[in-house]
Amino acid sequence: MHFFSDNATPVCPQVMAAIAGADHADHGYDGDRWSARIDGAFSDLFETPVSALWVASGTAANSIALACLCQPYGGIICHEEAHIVVDECGAPGFFTHGASLMPLPGAGAKLTPDVVTDRLATIRPDVHQVPGQAISITNATEYGLTYSPDDVAALGEIARRHGIALHMDGARFANAVAFADCAPADITWRAGVDALSFGCVKNGGMIGEALLFFGPEREHLAALAARWRKRSGHLFSKGRYLAAQILALIEDGLWLDNARAANAAAQALAQGAETRLLHRVEANELFIRLSAAEAKALRDQGFDFYDWGEGAARLVTNWSQDAGSVAPLAAALRALDHG
Amino acid sequence: MHFFSDNATPVCPQVMAAIAGADHADHGYDGDRWSARIDGAFSDLFETPVSALWVASGTAANSIALACLCQPYGGIICHEEAHIVVDECGAPGFFTHGASLMPLPGAGAKLTPDVVTDRLATIRPDVHQVPGQAISITNATEYGLTYSPDDVAALGEIARRHGIALHMDGARFANAVAFADCAPADITWRAGVDALSFGCVKNGGMIGEALLFFGPEREHLAALAARWRKRSGHLFSKGRYLAAQILALIEDGLWLDNARAANAAAQALAQGAETRLLHRVEANELFIRLSAAEAKALRDQGFDFYDWGEGAARLVTNWSQDAGSVAPLAAALRALDHG
Amino acid sequence: MHFFSDNATPVCPQVMAAIAGADHADHGYDGDRWSARIDGAFSDLFETPVSALWVASGTAANSIALACLCQPYGGIICHEEAHIVVDECGAPGFFTHGASLMPLPGAGAKLTPDVVTDRLATIRPDVHQVPGQAISITNATEYGLTYSPDDVAALGEIARRHGIALHMDGARFANAVAFADCAPADITWRAGVDALSFGCVKNGGMIGEALLFFGPEREHLAALAARWRKRSGHLFSKGRYLAAQILALIEDGLWLDNARAANAAAQALAQGAETRLLHRVEANELFIRLSAAEAKALRDQGFDFYDWGEGAARLVTNWSQDAGSVAPLAAALRALDHG
Amino acid sequence: MHFFSDNATPVCPQVMAAIAGADHADHGYDGDRWSARIDGAFSDLFETPVSALWVASGTAANSIALACLCQPYGGIICHEEAHIVVDECGAPGFFTHGASLMPLPGAGAKLTPDVVTDRLATIRPDVHQVPGQAISITNATEYGLTYSPDDVAALGEIARRHGIALHMDGARFANAVAFADCAPADITWRAGVDALSFGCVKNGGMIGEALLFFGPEREHLAALAARWRKRSGHLFSKGRYLAAQILALIEDGLWLDNARAANAAAQALAQGAETRLLHRVEANELFIRLSAAEAKALRDQGFDFYDWGEGAARLVTNWSQDAGSVAPLAAALRALDHG
Repeated sequence: MHFFSDNATPVCPQVMAAIAGADHADHGYDGDRWSARIDGAFSDLFETPVSALWVASGTAANSIALACLCQPYGGIICHEEAHIVVDECGAPGFFTHGASLMPLPGAGAKLTPDVVTDRLATIRPDVHQVPGQAISITNATEYGLTYSPDDVAALGEIARRHGIALHMDGARFANAVAFADCAPADITWRAGVDALSFGCVKNGGMIGEALLFFGPEREHLAALAARWRKRSGHLFSKGRYLAAQILALIEDGLWLDNARAANAAAQALAQGAETRLLHRVEANELFIRLSAAEAKALRDQGFDFYDWGEGAARLVTNWSQDAGSVAPLAAALRALDHG
Repeated sequence: MHFFSDNATPVCPQVMAAIAGADHADHGYDGDRWSARIDGAFSDLFETPVSALWVASGTAANSIALACLCQPYGGIICHEEAHIVVDECGAPGFFTHGASLMPLPGAGAKLTPDVVTDRLATIRPDVHQVPGQAISITNATEYGLTYSPDDVAALGEIARRHGIALHMDGARFANAVAFADCAPADITWRAGVDALSFGCVKNGGMIGEALLFFGPEREHLAALAARWRKRSGHLFSKGRYLAAQILALIEDGLWLDNARAANAAAQALAQGAETRLLHRVEANELFIRLSAAEAKALRDQGFDFYDWGEGAARLVTNWSQDAGSVAPLAAALRALDHG
Repeated sequence: MHFFSDNATPVCPQVMAAIAGADHADHGYDGDRWSARIDGAFSDLFETPVSALWVASGTAANSIALACLCQPYGGIICHEEAHIVVDECGAPGFFTHGASLMPLPGAGAKLTPDVVTDRLATIRPDVHQVPGQAISITNATEYGLTYSPDDVAALGEIARRHGIALHMDGARFANAVAFADCAPADITWRAGVDALSFGCVKNGGMIGEALLFFGPEREHLAALAARWRKRSGHLFSKGRYLAAQILALIEDGLWLDNARAANAAAQALAQGAETRLLHRVEANELFIRLSAAEAKALRDQGFDFYDWGEGAARLVTNWSQDAGSVAPLAAALRALDHG
Repeated sequence: MHFFSDNATPVCPQVMAAIAGADHADHGYDGDRWSARIDGAFSDLFETPVSALWVASGTAANSIALACLCQPYGGIICHEEAHIVVDECGAPGFFTHGASLMPLPGAGAKLTPDVVTDRLATIRPDVHQVPGQAISITNATEYGLTYSPDDVAALGEIARRHGIALHMDGARFANAVAFADCAPADITWRAGVDALSFGCVKNGGMIGEALLFFGPEREHLAALAARWRKRSGHLFSKGRYLAAQILALIEDGLWLDNARAANAAAQALAQGAETRLLHRVEANELFIRLSAAEAKALRDQGFDFYDWGEGAARLVTNWSQDAGSVAPLAAALRALDHG
């Protein structure tokens, strides 16, 4: 059983069926009947008018969002271990035409209000310094922690006070919502989020992530994003196959079902590994202390995963698992301590 | 029956089957076993070592190619009606960081050696002027004409003489090869092409085009392109679903079968419309004189297509058609003259 | 006597004196007392509140203006022989982050309303095409013609109707105003100009051109330009030496005196060369038919200038000349015909 | 007496004389006889062939250098308090087209070999991460410390081992050389520096800094820089006035005389303030503990300077001072302790 990444997983059957169901002639780009429905579907889900665009990857969704929220001479407050900092080969700098990332520390890759406020306070408002123009957070974080609606709202309040934007990288947004057990609106726009990268691929999709702008007052940002999508080559010729996947995930709650399954699997593992957790488990990722000998012992039993530096490992669960299916690994982890 | 665009067509069954066949857990990005095979498959097809990358769209393939072949301060010689000029919302300027398109005239959207040579001769080699650093041609062209191997070689010779690069936008490359009935190598690298945007989606694919660099001496360009792919958000999380499509098209000749079918359909229509052709028909597109009344007459019979300015129309055939299946439209076109 | 370029000329004495007069300790960048006065001085000159920035060169002034008026995905309508097209090594693409120049033909490097209107009409308003977002004209043009207030107003009206901006490259603005004998306001903001590159160096200055934004409603563009000036390295450490030059030119009418002298010299030459003029002479440049033998004859008499392709030459007069001082060349030109 | 900034100072008389001496007609841009001499003058000074370009500001020199040394997808190792990080409004991101600054800590704004080595070791060589491609150091640093030839060589060795470049921001290079009392070559190219921003304006110049590339093997970088200079608007129309200043500074040792005077003034102040120094004084800047009351006391005596956060102040000396001329402030500082 593999716990490498939720990217490694097959596509969930309902998504595959939706792709087949979209296999009819229709207009190209986003002129088809499936693409025409995604704004409405997201608006229903988020209880406010949403402008949504499908793109190829989370990197594209994040970067296009930031290009719409931050000027080329501006800066983006973010965590120093955020995906946009360490895993996108400088994509934000490319899409924003040179805006500066402003990385900050924080446990579990979470930004705290204090560290953000302090950073913003260091910036002189003259032309010599890069003004902070956006805050970007990842929910769930790169270490599997989540921002609660209150956590988000505290950062949203800072953003509003400084007149800057708030972006959420939601590559694992479904897992965060499933953990918080809240309305999607509560953890996003009601808490001050302007734009959300809504992850699909890690949660059962094949190809395509969604970029959302909330409320009629951000429609102009979505129009700008549509230009950026085209000029960055993300306006697929046959967009209907992306739109159909997204609709399959969100129209009937599949996205949450999938995330709940993955989260439940992670909780089951967390109980097995409770003495070795490096971070709280609030989504579908575990970071655990694990010696080389222990790692080998697990691999000998058929479990695989990435080492995470020396003496540690990362385990990622996914939509196709649940507490039951990962029970063997949970037991094996427990046995390392008590075996 | 619709003749809007080859983008509007469903996916061909073998490609759909290949997608289903790739629906297994594997490594993310391009670390999977399907992606691992595409260099080899293209190398076989082109009879030389090829470095290949899948990306989301032809716009991305073209722009990444140009970014690898032209400096930000350089210029790209191209036709004034090329896709990169009129239909990509400035994507080449985005990816190249501001390089200049240098549009030139020419019948049927084809560049001739003379016009290219004359343009290059106007450029002073001082720092005030933008130096031409690449030539980009579209084969088949935006008007359904093709460059033969000799046509390409004549431009390749100019490029070599000036020490600049030659890029081919092959959104309909299969149609061009099917028309020329030549080895793919003869119309590309043997004729001086450095990089090829190899079209898949218009030719039966669902999602994903390929960008090819020819020969071991261009591997460094492919490595650069890999950086550009990542930073532009085109390194899909589950790349195996793109690679599988490409392999399905090229490993057993499906790409040429599909193109031959589309070309045959176009030839059948061209015979029906022989008095009204605005351009020779050498691929899967027809541009014809057609009055508003004639257009209405055809639409009343159930045929649809795009108007192309006043008194003209564009008809695009595709992989799912052939001479037989489009016979009704061919007859209807003929009947307009002789009816 | 040299007629190469107005760039080749020494600095006029009043400017040199002003530089010496600014040689006192003061705050750096644009915090000094001279820089503090340029907005006011330009506001007086243009009879409206002006926001002005000094930069190193006309290329910088033009490009920063365009970056403030045009989005990266937009296009700039301009003449195909404009300085921004042929002599700035792609600077507009650099500063605008990839916006497209849209070059148009026109006699004497002048844009006509018809050609601009026709070009704008070709652009579909969808995301695939680059929208025209600014018109840039050069006054006086690269061939020494001028736009009258009415000429400018006709283009200003087109810009307003399309909701796009109008920029004027005024490298030789003083010569254009001297020729039109009009209020500077009439040929700029009253005629619809949003931003002006106000040339100083060709007109007697040493270093530094000015970029102007007209009216309180364009202050936000000037604030944006201030960011662009800093991030492009044009916020000089000791800006007072630039500001002092600009003040010397504009506060007491020196800029117009200098331009009138140069224009008068050009008119004197034009009378001498009346049979050989390739363009009307409306500023300080002459383009004349001149055989190699004739050119040699003039050079043998001590006159020098640039050849302008085969059988033609360019003669540029400057602030340090007038009708009297160039009389010998005028006579020599006349003698070529009648000698 | 003011100690705000070396930017606030007048121009030194020899430079002013050189400007007057260049006030003759000559070719535009860098085609004049003064510009023609700067490569040679710097080559003599640095004992190796040097390619030199004048630009408007240190920001431009730094950014053009980095654009030539680092790809758009690459990263630049630097100190977190470096001028390029905190005082250039994102200029490096603009010129490099989005490269990432990689800021590191270190006392006195100095990078140590260990911290650089450790940072480079964290970077995976895959396409997801930004590769470090250049190291940039400031000598003298933003806190008035210097890198000795050995200090530079240790970083140069790291750069060479990783196959990356080394840039030196020498806004106060003269002060660093004066302090080290070494050959300019020893602290630059012999220690592994590829490109140097050679500061002139803080050291007695009026307008213009120089960007140097060392050795014939870096001529191609200088040629690239020449393109970047033009497209960023830094190719002044009358470059001779910049070249003449540079020649005045370097041809007869004036640059070192000026720096020694400023350094001596700083040492005199340092002795007066020896109990309150926040950093060693190795150039022409002092950072001292100073209460609000003490600051007021000094200002009441006619000395002025910038506060540097709470309870601290920055004092900058310049070429027009020396130990004698600043003796009154030195005494006043000493009196604060012993008064």
